Amino acid sequence: MIKEGVFHFVTESYLLDFRGRVTIPMIGNYLLHAASSHASERGFGYTDMTEKHTAWVLSRIAIEMTDYPKLSEPITLYTWVGEVGRLFTERCFELQNGEGNPFGYARSIWAAIDLETRRPTPLDVEGLSTYVSDRLCPIEKPGKIKPVESEVEGTSFIVKYSDLDINGHLNSIKYMEHLLDMFNIRMFEEKEVRRFEISYLAEGRYGMELTLHSEPIDTDQYAMAICHEGKAICRAAVNWK
Amino acid sequence: MIKEGVFHFVTESYLLDFRGRVTIPMIGNYLLHAASSHASERGFGYTDMTEKHTAWVLSRIAIEMTDYPKLSEPITLYTWVGEVGRLFTERCFELQNGEGNPFGYARSIWAAIDLETRRPTPLDVEGLSTYVSDRLCPIEKPGKIKPVESEVEGTSFIVKYSDLDINGHLNSIKYMEHLLDMFNIRMFEEKEVRRFEISYLAEGRYGMELTLHSEPIDTDQYAMAICHEGKAICRAAVNWK
Repeated sequence: MIKEGVFHFVTESYLLDFRGRVTIPMIGNYLLHAASSHASERGFGYTDMTEKHTAWVLSRIAIEMTDYPKLSEPITLYTWVGEVGRLFTERCFELQNGEGNPFGYARSIWAAIDLETRRPTPLDVEGLSTYVSDRLCPIEKPGKIKPVESEVEGTSFIVKYSDLDINGHLNSIKYMEHLLDMFNIRMFEEKEVRRFEISYLAEGRYGMELTLHSEPIDTDQYAMAICHEGKAICRAAVNWK
Repeated sequence: MIKEGVFHFVTESYLLDFRGRVTIPMIGNYLLHAASSHASERGFGYTDMTEKHTAWVLSRIAIEMTDYPKLSEPITLYTWVGEVGRLFTERCFELQNGEGNPFGYARSIWAAIDLETRRPTPLDVEGLSTYVSDRLCPIEKPGKIKPVESEVEGTSFIVKYSDLDINGHLNSIKYMEHLLDMFNIRMFEEKEVRRFEISYLAEGRYGMELTLHSEPIDTDQYAMAICHEGKAICRAAVNWK
């Protein structure tokens, strides 16, 4: 089995935003699709993990885009394992257009949790290491994000049925949607998200009241958080250009 | 070009709900994917319509499910044109599992609108009729739905960036999500949606305050509506079993 995975997508009209462009959450869906297929094909997918009473948990992801595909444009997505540690493994992505030119990259950090205790559990370092590729991902790793939840008041929402994933928790893509929805539509009309970075800290559950916080920290740079009872369940950083 | 379209999907873990099952909105996405691909391949897709300054608008859809696929289950989706009228055309769908047994059907009614006036415009009856199939779709057509908006108070939400489609209006799948989110999670734990029917009446726009209304009209049957300033922009009927 070769180390890298290659996946093909074609953008579809009903999944594009009002600009006729692919959205960050939709890119996120493509990345998760590639990640889960790549893992399954190599014996460490969702079902393999469940058999060991474990599950993959996305810990952090940074997505950088220099362009956003339009309607019916083909996307080729490469994914590979970057690093494997005792508790965390890195997965990288490169997005290419129909001419084979890259227009986006992503770096993600994953942990495995025990399904009973919901605590991190050691990875199969040897098994995963078989697939480590030395292909480079030329963007910065997801890093520390400034806490803003105590500085700005949040708008609240309740976690609903459609927000839940197969584990009964707030779906990782839904975090992205709720965060981006905090920006006024004008931002999307005038600019584009150059880098979107998110760090997942705790699980959102059905019926939870969550608050959304956003603060500009520099020109076109925002630090954001989603909180439950004042405690961040995720932090995010968004750079516009 | 053959009349019927056949499309293949495999359910993916990150798109399933907390029951590990495909959701009605996700089924809706599969249907829209098949509809738009089937239409494009036959010269009346999104781009063909745009060239004539027109766009397809989904007017009504009824989805009936006897089973909901689980993780990694293959879905074969058949779609065909049922009827063509001067202003409306019917598209039908049949969903089959890996053994070729049907587990769902859908019937949808579409209109074409003029992109300038946003008013219905006559269809290319002759062109579309080439593809009319006499395959049967054994569920009831979407029909009249009881208005409930004046009888029950609604909970409100504001249309945001992630709710918008390529035309800048509330995405037809997002209507479904917002409506299903009105039901308590217990309903999904104990029952399943047997039939989901929706009638789109007007376009939801960015920043609009919409209200969601739901009323039980019989055992396990609900009539619902989404309103703007007291006027319904869609009505829906949901039957549980």
